[in-house]
Amino acid sequence: MAIVVQKYGGTSVGDVDRMKRVADRVARSHRGGNQTVVVVSAMGKTTDELVDMAARISEQPPERELDILLTAGERISMSLLAIALAERGVPAKSFTGSQAGIITDAVHGKARIVDITPGRVQGALEEGNVVIVAGFQGVSQDTKDITTLGRGGSDTTAVALAAALGADVCEIYTDVDGVFTADPRIVHDARKLDYVSYEEMLEMSAQGAGVLQVRSVEFGRNHDVRIHVRSSFSYTAGTWVGPEEDKVEDAIISGVAHDTSEAKMTVHGVPDTPGVASRLFSALAQTNVNIDMIVQNVSSDGRTDISFTLPRGDQPQALSVLEPLANEIHAEGINVDDNIAKVSLVGAGMKTHPGVAAKMFGALSTAGVNIEMISTSTIRVSVVVSKDQVEQAVLAVHDAFDLADEQVAQESN
Amino acid sequence: MAIVVQKYGGTSVGDVDRMKRVADRVARSHRGGNQTVVVVSAMGKTTDELVDMAARISEQPPERELDILLTAGERISMSLLAIALAERGVPAKSFTGSQAGIITDAVHGKARIVDITPGRVQGALEEGNVVIVAGFQGVSQDTKDITTLGRGGSDTTAVALAAALGADVCEIYTDVDGVFTADPRIVHDARKLDYVSYEEMLEMSAQGAGVLQVRSVEFGRNHDVRIHVRSSFSYTAGTWVGPEEDKVEDAIISGVAHDTSEAKMTVHGVPDTPGVASRLFSALAQTNVNIDMIVQNVSSDGRTDISFTLPRGDQPQALSVLEPLANEIHAEGINVDDNIAKVSLVGAGMKTHPGVAAKMFGALSTAGVNIEMISTSTIRVSVVVSKDQVEQAVLAVHDAFDLADEQVAQESN
Repeated sequence: MAIVVQKYGGTSVGDVDRMKRVADRVARSHRGGNQTVVVVSAMGKTTDELVDMAARISEQPPERELDILLTAGERISMSLLAIALAERGVPAKSFTGSQAGIITDAVHGKARIVDITPGRVQGALEEGNVVIVAGFQGVSQDTKDITTLGRGGSDTTAVALAAALGADVCEIYTDVDGVFTADPRIVHDARKLDYVSYEEMLEMSAQGAGVLQVRSVEFGRNHDVRIHVRSSFSYTAGTWVGPEEDKVEDAIISGVAHDTSEAKMTVHGVPDTPGVASRLFSALAQTNVNIDMIVQNVSSDGRTDISFTLPRGDQPQALSVLEPLANEIHAEGINVDDNIAKVSLVGAGMKTHPGVAAKMFGALSTAGVNIEMISTSTIRVSVVVSKDQVEQAVLAVHDAFDLADEQVAQESN
Repeated sequence: MAIVVQKYGGTSVGDVDRMKRVADRVARSHRGGNQTVVVVSAMGKTTDELVDMAARISEQPPERELDILLTAGERISMSLLAIALAERGVPAKSFTGSQAGIITDAVHGKARIVDITPGRVQGALEEGNVVIVAGFQGVSQDTKDITTLGRGGSDTTAVALAAALGADVCEIYTDVDGVFTADPRIVHDARKLDYVSYEEMLEMSAQGAGVLQVRSVEFGRNHDVRIHVRSSFSYTAGTWVGPEEDKVEDAIISGVAHDTSEAKMTVHGVPDTPGVASRLFSALAQTNVNIDMIVQNVSSDGRTDISFTLPRGDQPQALSVLEPLANEIHAEGINVDDNIAKVSLVGAGMKTHPGVAAKMFGALSTAGVNIEMISTSTIRVSVVVSKDQVEQAVLAVHDAFDLADEQVAQESN
């Protein structure tokens, strides 16, 4: 008997009627003979509404309490789904993250899963129930406090549970048909990918493809969980995420991702002496700010500029540690630029194909897009451009590598 | 240092602004040097909205899941209040019923508290926090499932916590000034009582005075918790509930309670043989239906009618066990009357004053109110009348015993 973990996002359970449609889909999996575990997010905009209420009360709500507040939405959807399943004659039991044994560290707002003890989940499965688990939440190992896993955390809940239960597949249901070569809202002939490797998906998620949370892909890769990203509004196959070697397509490039949620921070006139950069970034690390691209200019007369990108929301924390430090090390100042976007080209194939970066830069300059920062990995090239030019940039790169070309898609199958 | 438990109902925390006012009041208690524990209900109509969503999905939602759903509201208010207190510089930690150690039996929807293990609450208090606890909920001893204590359950959470913590007082904040001699919406010159005994409060709550849940009063009496029922919209003293001997007033009667939430069920033509009644009511007991008044007619030619009142919502369960049973014992039929109301006269003084019942019945007949059922305790006389006549009945009885008369109030102080 197969074990299937399904995750439904906030849009899929956006209202009572959609909740019923999800129940139909889950019932179908259960009647098909699968041991089915369902991870649900909060309904539609519930979480945003809760955040808003907190904001009306305090500008800096205590993180422990904010986490308790934000976990309420998943409790509502998990119990409603269980009720909808019972109405369809399918026995179901719902569990909070804590009850499901999602054990995390104590970093409220972006806790990491450190262990999973799914005893109650397995027990309920063996009794023949569909098991519904609240996404996005866990309980801290040390303090026993309720924690949340950060935006998109339900993906991680699902993949982590799939790993712990040895599930055959983890289905991530969303409001799009799968992973595309680019955001279809920008690139109208973007193509749905049938299969991407964990590594490619990691890069695409990290670079702004909103479809899967980065940590969920890490979890999938580390525990070899087959992930199927698909639409909750159709029964067509979506995009499979798995190991590189299972990949059929041999396309050089998988897709273009973009991210407009970050800001660029520059520390000017940093004395170019050993250990300075490490002091800056270890200080930032302690604030749990996720630094992304880092660029250090060539130094001139003993001083240099250090730039990095970070989530726009993390700027206050970053500044609070950087400003005193900048004084200490006698830097000339800190500058923040919100008007940036990141465009990334991702493809495992580029490892063995030189000139990919050059071709990308060429396409951008032809499109009149200025490049502000560059960073690369073995399977990714990312550039920072002005936010006003992000669409031109994505279109230009997508076009330059013929990602829409159906021929390529055919051949590669 | 005094330990104070405060309970705020749904109206008191009805919206963000009211939540802030409650935070001011709690902060005042904390700054006054009290170790303060706050029990909160869900905001305004939240719980009703959740019930409504469930109803749109299923006519008979599984009780386990319904309880999980209904506890979401308290999580929202408890964390918002903690956030509001932090904003006022008051350290606060919120706990769910389960985290606060509210251990119950497994009767979902109307669970009973079987134990309280407030270790985490005491720990947080000793750290100098205001502790906020979600009302109305607990965790089942055997199944570890989330349970709810039934309507008004937050009162019981508060009094039970006060007992477990050895609190000096349990303040129940509501939207009225205290306990009145009758419902002020019906009797405009109803008088606020300064003090009522546990026994009187028990009878009044049981007979429909909505201000305190019956179980909370039982808890208060069994553990000698001083309860202060007062308004969250003013700082004037409310009504104290405590032991009979501390009572200063020597009024014969405390007040008139009424209840329009019940129905009357009659089993007709029951063979008048030993054990029949016991079979009926033990069957009902197993469905956890709360039977209230019971009247058995004088038997004629070997048969009798047995009538009882019960919460209107419990009629389906009651019928489901009574109908087969009525056939078994060859009763003639079952009849249900929704159009009834219960009017009760309560007062510890009536123990020693004969003729109270007679005076009450006299007042009712003068007012042209017909009496359908009668039941009495040492400190209460209850009658069932037609629902259309409940206001006349309450006014007539309140008037007959001069409960509004300020003179009486003065003399008795």
